[in-house]
Amino acid sequence: MPGQVYQQMGIELLIDEVVKIDRTNKILYTRAGKEVSYEKLVLALGSKPYIPPIKGVELENVFTVPKDANYLAKMKEKLSSLNRVIVVGAGFIGVEVSEQLALEGKEVILVEIMPHILPKAFDADVAKFPAEELEKLGVKIMVNAKILEIRGNGKVETVIFENGEEVRADAVILATGYVPNTEIAIEAGFEVNRYRMIRVDSYMRTVTDPDVFAVGDCAQKIDFVTRRSVPVMLASTATTEARIAGANLYELSTVRTFLGTIAIFSTKVGTLAIGSAGLIEEEAKKNGFDVMVGYAEAIDKHPGTLPNAKKQIVKLIVAKECGTILGGEVVGGDSAGEIINFIGLAIQKRMTVSELYTMQIGTHPLLTAAPTVYPVIKAAENVIFSR
Amino acid sequence: MPGQVYQQMGIELLIDEVVKIDRTNKILYTRAGKEVSYEKLVLALGSKPYIPPIKGVELENVFTVPKDANYLAKMKEKLSSLNRVIVVGAGFIGVEVSEQLALEGKEVILVEIMPHILPKAFDADVAKFPAEELEKLGVKIMVNAKILEIRGNGKVETVIFENGEEVRADAVILATGYVPNTEIAIEAGFEVNRYRMIRVDSYMRTVTDPDVFAVGDCAQKIDFVTRRSVPVMLASTATTEARIAGANLYELSTVRTFLGTIAIFSTKVGTLAIGSAGLIEEEAKKNGFDVMVGYAEAIDKHPGTLPNAKKQIVKLIVAKECGTILGGEVVGGDSAGEIINFIGLAIQKRMTVSELYTMQIGTHPLLTAAPTVYPVIKAAENVIFSR
Repeated sequence: MPGQVYQQMGIELLIDEVVKIDRTNKILYTRAGKEVSYEKLVLALGSKPYIPPIKGVELENVFTVPKDANYLAKMKEKLSSLNRVIVVGAGFIGVEVSEQLALEGKEVILVEIMPHILPKAFDADVAKFPAEELEKLGVKIMVNAKILEIRGNGKVETVIFENGEEVRADAVILATGYVPNTEIAIEAGFEVNRYRMIRVDSYMRTVTDPDVFAVGDCAQKIDFVTRRSVPVMLASTATTEARIAGANLYELSTVRTFLGTIAIFSTKVGTLAIGSAGLIEEEAKKNGFDVMVGYAEAIDKHPGTLPNAKKQIVKLIVAKECGTILGGEVVGGDSAGEIINFIGLAIQKRMTVSELYTMQIGTHPLLTAAPTVYPVIKAAENVIFSR
Repeated sequence: MPGQVYQQMGIELLIDEVVKIDRTNKILYTRAGKEVSYEKLVLALGSKPYIPPIKGVELENVFTVPKDANYLAKMKEKLSSLNRVIVVGAGFIGVEVSEQLALEGKEVILVEIMPHILPKAFDADVAKFPAEELEKLGVKIMVNAKILEIRGNGKVETVIFENGEEVRADAVILATGYVPNTEIAIEAGFEVNRYRMIRVDSYMRTVTDPDVFAVGDCAQKIDFVTRRSVPVMLASTATTEARIAGANLYELSTVRTFLGTIAIFSTKVGTLAIGSAGLIEEEAKKNGFDVMVGYAEAIDKHPGTLPNAKKQIVKLIVAKECGTILGGEVVGGDSAGEIINFIGLAIQKRMTVSELYTMQIGTHPLLTAAPTVYPVIKAAENVIFSR
């Protein structure tokens, strides 16, 4: 957003770094030596890449993926002369980076410590589809694989795996997650959770100070279903939190509160769009839920012979107890990005599969699957009738 | 569905025409002379084009748009040698037919009796976007225009309007709505409403006979919000009704009932996808609701400079009383087809704008608008903060 827009909205924009928060006197101290007083303070401190304790991470051509356009431009420049890249971590960032580098013609090896890619957002039976897409693009995927060391004479030359394997590489990209930028908040006495995310209530107020709110990657996330802290960091969640903080900053609202994170993700791998919302089956079971799952498959246009028609697959994860929808996963064409929002809404409204099964939807040959096979509804049907 | 699939599911498929329903003895009589007894009967009689009382509709090259592939193939064949086509009625069928004929290079005049195209599904301020698309394709749109007569020597030659205007035409396509195929049901004593649609309850049972259900275009539609009969006929509504009839046929379900029609439409005009759910503003006001509306506009990818990015516009119609969402209209790229389902779900769950405003959504640069400007949420914001 350009500075002028802020001005028009009555916002004074100060580009500087806060180095200290004085809660008692309600003053911020900045790197440039400014003192800024506040009535209310919103902490939107963001996050930075987590660097795993691997020997050799300091070598040249070991990169992370920070939210820093200058760093990324330099990394891109350096990668232009390097060919063989090992990407460590197959979460969304690792998968997206691998896909883009493969499209640029690089030899990419994607390494994941868990048994399948995207292990937090998708179950194995759904994650296989984006994995196939990556492989089609030439990405080599190594799962159940742990890296112990990066070796080289100044620069990356090889990577050593836990099983003793040594793999040659020109560069290593660490896509091993993010940690919140909460040092100054911790120094100021704000309570954080085990992920060092600032504890907040459902109004996005810090539990430590009612005049200080926290939103985004630096703020605690409580899972909507399990009610446990989760280290999810998503721009879409952050914007919802920001809206809620804004609505509650000067006067609390009983109707605009944060109900818990349902972590709606979507991305595109090759020509395949994928989305996930709420709990995956593995996570639901790990949390002790007795779950049922349902699947449905259709084509995202009708008839399926239309140009650019793509297969659409929906998986629903449902509590056996009363049929409440706990999670959903979608694979398909670009419309999967909005279908996962439909499922996300159903989860947030604590809908049951029976309710979902009887919901009216709109369909059109060029825009959606046929009404008779609309996969979200059919996946609900599959849960109900496979009980 | 091929015959084999029916067989596998234990369904006996009989292609014949039912000419009489004997409710007392539970027997159907067919055109071919068969007698078929039933325990339970589901009437899915469909609909046929409504032919308005215009002089000259019997002329050659006057067509309707029935659900009849043979008729449509013949019509297409005949139209191939005709150039100037007047389409009467700018509902979805009239708009889609006009678009397709314009794409084939025909000179198309689309005539609508109301002040704007798609008057039942969109307010004037949203309908202008598909109207512009049609005009870009060369379709000439005439609104507030009533046809009195079609003239010609055997074949269509001119069309006479109420204002006296006479317009030359080679063909006329009547896209003036549909009426239910309920003659045999009326003869059998089934109660119908003023649209001749069979009266049913929320289990889709006819009010006349608990062993006979009716679904689809032949069954009564009660609007979800206004609770009044409406003549809406949609394949997607029909499939929902069919699922509910199936779930209640032999044993009533308390959780799988039909809550009223919200009529979710979507279509594509040129490269523009449009969708509508629930009440439009005009209809809500006509029904006596005190409403607020909200608008938001964004680009359906982010950054908006990505290839194929399209403008996305959302309008929400909300009851002033307590903020309940009564309807929504969307214009955009192909994802509008699923966004309208998201809004449709919000309407069916009787969500308020405040709830919608605080909903979490998932976003991705290639698949959705940016999280900061996601138009469904921003339209809710627009309603709240313009109060």
